Amino acid sequence: MSSGESSSSRIDYSRLLSWEAKHRARSGIKMLRPYMSIPGMISFGGGYPHASTWPVNGMTLSLPFSGESVFVPGYQTNSPDGLLPLASYSPPPKTSTLQPHLAAELQYSQTFGQVHFISWLKEHIARIHNPPYAKYEDYTILNTAGNTDGVDAVLRTCMDKGDHVLVEEFAYPGTLSHCESLGLPAIGVPMDSDGIVPSALEDMMSRWDENERGGKRPKFLLVVPTCSNPAGATIPAERKREIYTICRKWGLMIIEDDPYYFLQIRPNGVDSPPCTSFLSMDIDGRVIRLDSFSKIVAPGSRCGFITGPTELVTHIMYSRECSTQLPSGFSIAIISSILQAWGGHEGYEKNYLPYISSVYSKRAILMSNLISKHVPAKAATAPPPSGGMFLWLRLHLEDHPDISDTSVSLEDLAERVFQSLIEAKVLTVPSKFFKAPGKSWTRDEEAKRIFLRLSFATATEEEITEGVQRIGRALTKEWRI
Amino acid sequence: MSSGESSSSRIDYSRLLSWEAKHRARSGIKMLRPYMSIPGMISFGGGYPHASTWPVNGMTLSLPFSGESVFVPGYQTNSPDGLLPLASYSPPPKTSTLQPHLAAELQYSQTFGQVHFISWLKEHIARIHNPPYAKYEDYTILNTAGNTDGVDAVLRTCMDKGDHVLVEEFAYPGTLSHCESLGLPAIGVPMDSDGIVPSALEDMMSRWDENERGGKRPKFLLVVPTCSNPAGATIPAERKREIYTICRKWGLMIIEDDPYYFLQIRPNGVDSPPCTSFLSMDIDGRVIRLDSFSKIVAPGSRCGFITGPTELVTHIMYSRECSTQLPSGFSIAIISSILQAWGGHEGYEKNYLPYISSVYSKRAILMSNLISKHVPAKAATAPPPSGGMFLWLRLHLEDHPDISDTSVSLEDLAERVFQSLIEAKVLTVPSKFFKAPGKSWTRDEEAKRIFLRLSFATATEEEITEGVQRIGRALTKEWRI
Repeated sequence: MSSGESSSSRIDYSRLLSWEAKHRARSGIKMLRPYMSIPGMISFGGGYPHASTWPVNGMTLSLPFSGESVFVPGYQTNSPDGLLPLASYSPPPKTSTLQPHLAAELQYSQTFGQVHFISWLKEHIARIHNPPYAKYEDYTILNTAGNTDGVDAVLRTCMDKGDHVLVEEFAYPGTLSHCESLGLPAIGVPMDSDGIVPSALEDMMSRWDENERGGKRPKFLLVVPTCSNPAGATIPAERKREIYTICRKWGLMIIEDDPYYFLQIRPNGVDSPPCTSFLSMDIDGRVIRLDSFSKIVAPGSRCGFITGPTELVTHIMYSRECSTQLPSGFSIAIISSILQAWGGHEGYEKNYLPYISSVYSKRAILMSNLISKHVPAKAATAPPPSGGMFLWLRLHLEDHPDISDTSVSLEDLAERVFQSLIEAKVLTVPSKFFKAPGKSWTRDEEAKRIFLRLSFATATEEEITEGVQRIGRALTKEWRI
Repeated sequence: MSSGESSSSRIDYSRLLSWEAKHRARSGIKMLRPYMSIPGMISFGGGYPHASTWPVNGMTLSLPFSGESVFVPGYQTNSPDGLLPLASYSPPPKTSTLQPHLAAELQYSQTFGQVHFISWLKEHIARIHNPPYAKYEDYTILNTAGNTDGVDAVLRTCMDKGDHVLVEEFAYPGTLSHCESLGLPAIGVPMDSDGIVPSALEDMMSRWDENERGGKRPKFLLVVPTCSNPAGATIPAERKREIYTICRKWGLMIIEDDPYYFLQIRPNGVDSPPCTSFLSMDIDGRVIRLDSFSKIVAPGSRCGFITGPTELVTHIMYSRECSTQLPSGFSIAIISSILQAWGGHEGYEKNYLPYISSVYSKRAILMSNLISKHVPAKAATAPPPSGGMFLWLRLHLEDHPDISDTSVSLEDLAERVFQSLIEAKVLTVPSKFFKAPGKSWTRDEEAKRIFLRLSFATATEEEITEGVQRIGRALTKEWRI
């Protein structure tokens, strides 16, 4: 039943391409590029606006974390002197990878991204994940406009209408909706509090019946492995290894969509390293990893990056040439200036990343403790938080006083609980919005698979405290405790 | 033969939707929004990062055009006092439409765009184009990550594999390549120096043979009506009216991709208003207009906007929910601060836009004059420039000394001319890279339809002067004049 891909054979990426990707014609103009390097050549070739016309020729950013401000230079402006009351400027040393400059960032550029920025990201990936397949095949970074843009690029490049894709039992609704609009049936792999269950994945692949499923065995597993949305689950390293082995067996590619990676709870700060990623155990070039600055800098930065095997990432880049092209140059100038100001890799890893995880960790632990204190365990429990932005409160419908009344559907019962919280003025998100179609469960099993998603990211401490108390009171009443 | 759409009937946009658009499921979470307006509600619903974590809480932008700097506030920072040596800050008056603030722009937002910014853009569209159909049906603005993103969004929303789309005989290669990858045959409508020829469009639609063409009569005309890329052609108002009438007759929608609109040559500056757009004559809601800040602010701003009938633009927005989501919040904060600093609509229209057009106009006129002076008219001529970034130099192959040798193909002859310019060290772009398949021409006709694209946007005045002289010398030699 195995797809028979031997562990030593090179993955044939060409068989992964969608109709769209296979039919994407490259612009012939690009073949003219070598001419531009002939000495003395005057180019009337490009359609690039003139940098002297750009309205911002410098900016100063106030950076509270480092307690300083930085000046970003622009066209014919290498110092703030004589310009405006801006901060002083020290250009980065020539040896620095990051070389932010608005005159470069605001121009058109290669679609992979600004050279200095993607070089720095590649150093970052090597430091954090060090993909083992890099020993025999290079990997490539593609800058994206965030992970939603990244997922879109991967799906359009690698999948055609009718292709099934494996996702988590409870998955990000934007992904489910996008798969549906592209005609890609998304099938949920059963989860527990540690994320998708390896035996369930093996079971699903080995029992895959093309006729029953209406399509071929999937080629891709799309998973949010760290502090997942909605379930807040982080897959432990050992389980990741099991999943990776199963993926090898069945020739499954892994799309590792990991925007919350650096929001993991790290009890000892910098001395608690983030968990092992799929990329860091990837000996085949099987993982397409998606990182984002949305949770690290801000959602409005619209900046993320894809790491994966060069051949496939190049095809993914082609799809961006015809859509987003590049992230905003303002974003790149600002983010790279910030990274520089933070002290590059060392400062980022030792100071900022532990700080940003601690901000959310405190909130996660606060909410988790309040749930233990105020919500009766008979009615609902949440697993210990792993970080990110969400707790996943399981409703113990199996202990609900009306569970034995089989005339009431579980869906109606869950809705009643949700509405009781609305009446108590606390808004949560029912798990039905995240549920991918997959395994069928009995009523008894299903009663244990109904949740509410609780975000601790935005509410104040006072609101978290008051809100959890409201949940406690409402569920106490609803379970008649 | 007419498609029979009467002039008074409302367009049925639902028949324009692609499979992808028709199958796009909306997230059920959005139905929870009304709950958030219940007074006292604590929301654990959203997955929004906390604004206090964002690393930039203010920035100062040096704006050479207005000779001043502006301060952009951020989270809990409404003045630069005590922060850093930043410029002084005056918040915009409450009556101002533009209200840039990083704490809003860096957060997730509705996919249409930041409310203050798209409100301002709608005022802008009303002031410049005043679409007549707005009398009976509203139009809507959707912020995009630039016009390439916008074209992608429209194509994916409105077209399915196999649908034909009409483009200009010489069209932007990115569009041609993207249509090909989406399986949309792009058919070129013959052009002259005033853009696509109305009688040729009528001819193409009236003689459309489904069997011969292998597909139904097109539903969309995609056109760059102002200072087009590559041909630098601007369609005069009267010709636009003829084209619009033909589109009404055949039920054709018009995608007006207009990034160069404000780069038109305006001989009397502010007293020479920009030309009439398709949108400004749109009585039906037939035009989807795409504007961009790429040529007005900078390509790296990755910020554009779509204007069109609300129903259709809403569907287009859905496709962005699953891809780019929004332009960069840094871009929006910066661009809206700049627009504010320039004095809003009045300052933008009366000062900045005439200025930006004059920058390129001077270069266009310089290059055009140099061509008249140095390039023999027997060998090549360019029509008078209309603005933008490109001149379109027609090679008079009909007068080439080797034209009567029919063993030499026109393609080879054009390539030889191109290579003679390369030898003279001047890089141009041959028209073959822009040619959409369409009408078949005889050798005599085709000999008059071969061009070189010359960009005057990036080279210095000295380079423009030297480069045109090189062209003149090379063509003089090639035509043996």
